[in-house]
Amino acid sequence: MVEYPPHARRLIAALRSLPSIGARTAERLAIHILNTDATAALNLSEAIREARHAIRPCRQCGFFAEEELCEICRDTTRERSLICVVEESTDVLTFEKTGSYRGLYHVLHGTLSPLDGVGPEELGIPKLLQRVKDNGVREIILGLNPNVKGETTAIYIAREMKALGVRVSRLATGISASTGLEFVDSNTLSHALNDRKLVD
Amino acid sequence: MVEYPPHARRLIAALRSLPSIGARTAERLAIHILNTDATAALNLSEAIREARHAIRPCRQCGFFAEEELCEICRDTTRERSLICVVEESTDVLTFEKTGSYRGLYHVLHGTLSPLDGVGPEELGIPKLLQRVKDNGVREIILGLNPNVKGETTAIYIAREMKALGVRVSRLATGISASTGLEFVDSNTLSHALNDRKLVD
Repeated sequence: MVEYPPHARRLIAALRSLPSIGARTAERLAIHILNTDATAALNLSEAIREARHAIRPCRQCGFFAEEELCEICRDTTRERSLICVVEESTDVLTFEKTGSYRGLYHVLHGTLSPLDGVGPEELGIPKLLQRVKDNGVREIILGLNPNVKGETTAIYIAREMKALGVRVSRLATGISASTGLEFVDSNTLSHALNDRKLVD
Repeated sequence: MVEYPPHARRLIAALRSLPSIGARTAERLAIHILNTDATAALNLSEAIREARHAIRPCRQCGFFAEEELCEICRDTTRERSLICVVEESTDVLTFEKTGSYRGLYHVLHGTLSPLDGVGPEELGIPKLLQRVKDNGVREIILGLNPNVKGETTAIYIAREMKALGVRVSRLATGISASTGLEFVDSNTLSHALNDRKLVD
């Protein structure tokens, strides 16, 4: 039985290694790459290579950067005494989309997970504590996910920060500003009840 | 508002140009490429570039080839007087999977579509006729899709081949060997009735 030529099989295998790309999709993408005009295919190849070469973690905060420091850390108009701690670089973009945060960030690239060998050292928490001490940071906002791993990490960081005398805050939990009550899960709703605000 | 760095945006745009990859998926794939180990990312980039360089259409039949002739045209045990005409290179693989065809192929890379400026010349039909004459081909099997464009192309090729005195056949239409009667559309079922076979 005749199959794809070796280079096509290698391409299909490389595409399959991407998340959520199964065997059939990898095959369809490979066929497209082989049949499309060469410029588009080589452009994709170049874009992957150059992005990997050009983009690195910011030396200070860990967000995507093309220089030693990222765009946010280089921005002198940012409030430098406020740091929002997040799990992934993409979370930074989520905060930025609100347009309502003007402090800096710190990307952990994960959460504490002792069973997988991810302790404070692996997450770079000592580096974060050093950053806080060196730069006179006044407040840390914990922008971690509200699940077990996120909570554990938040509790650990909060304790360390308090030992340094730094103020620690976390995101408010409550009902969404854009969905109705019927879509709110009961855990969120009990948080919203506990944190209710007086109407003047 | 801070966005992805320029090289990440270029990568997202290049991924979006792939079929069935929308904005969210392109972003997720780009993040994966930026976060995964460099070897895997550069391997994908190389695989795309090398596949485009190494794979070309077979000079004789149009199927994927890494040399001047494809694996099938080079195979001297193949029945050389029988050619199955298909629309795309991937159709060749579909036939090969059956394991029951031992002739050669001819890939049209499309179907006749005069309104889109695709005539016999663009599909390389004169080249197919020349191939048939030069190689003493006895039979042409039309392995085109059973839709309007496939039918039109099949009728055109059949007429040209008959003028050369070559036998022309087409795939049988009938019920699937693996599904029940309830899944057969009525068009297929009327074909199966017309082409019924006597039981001895």
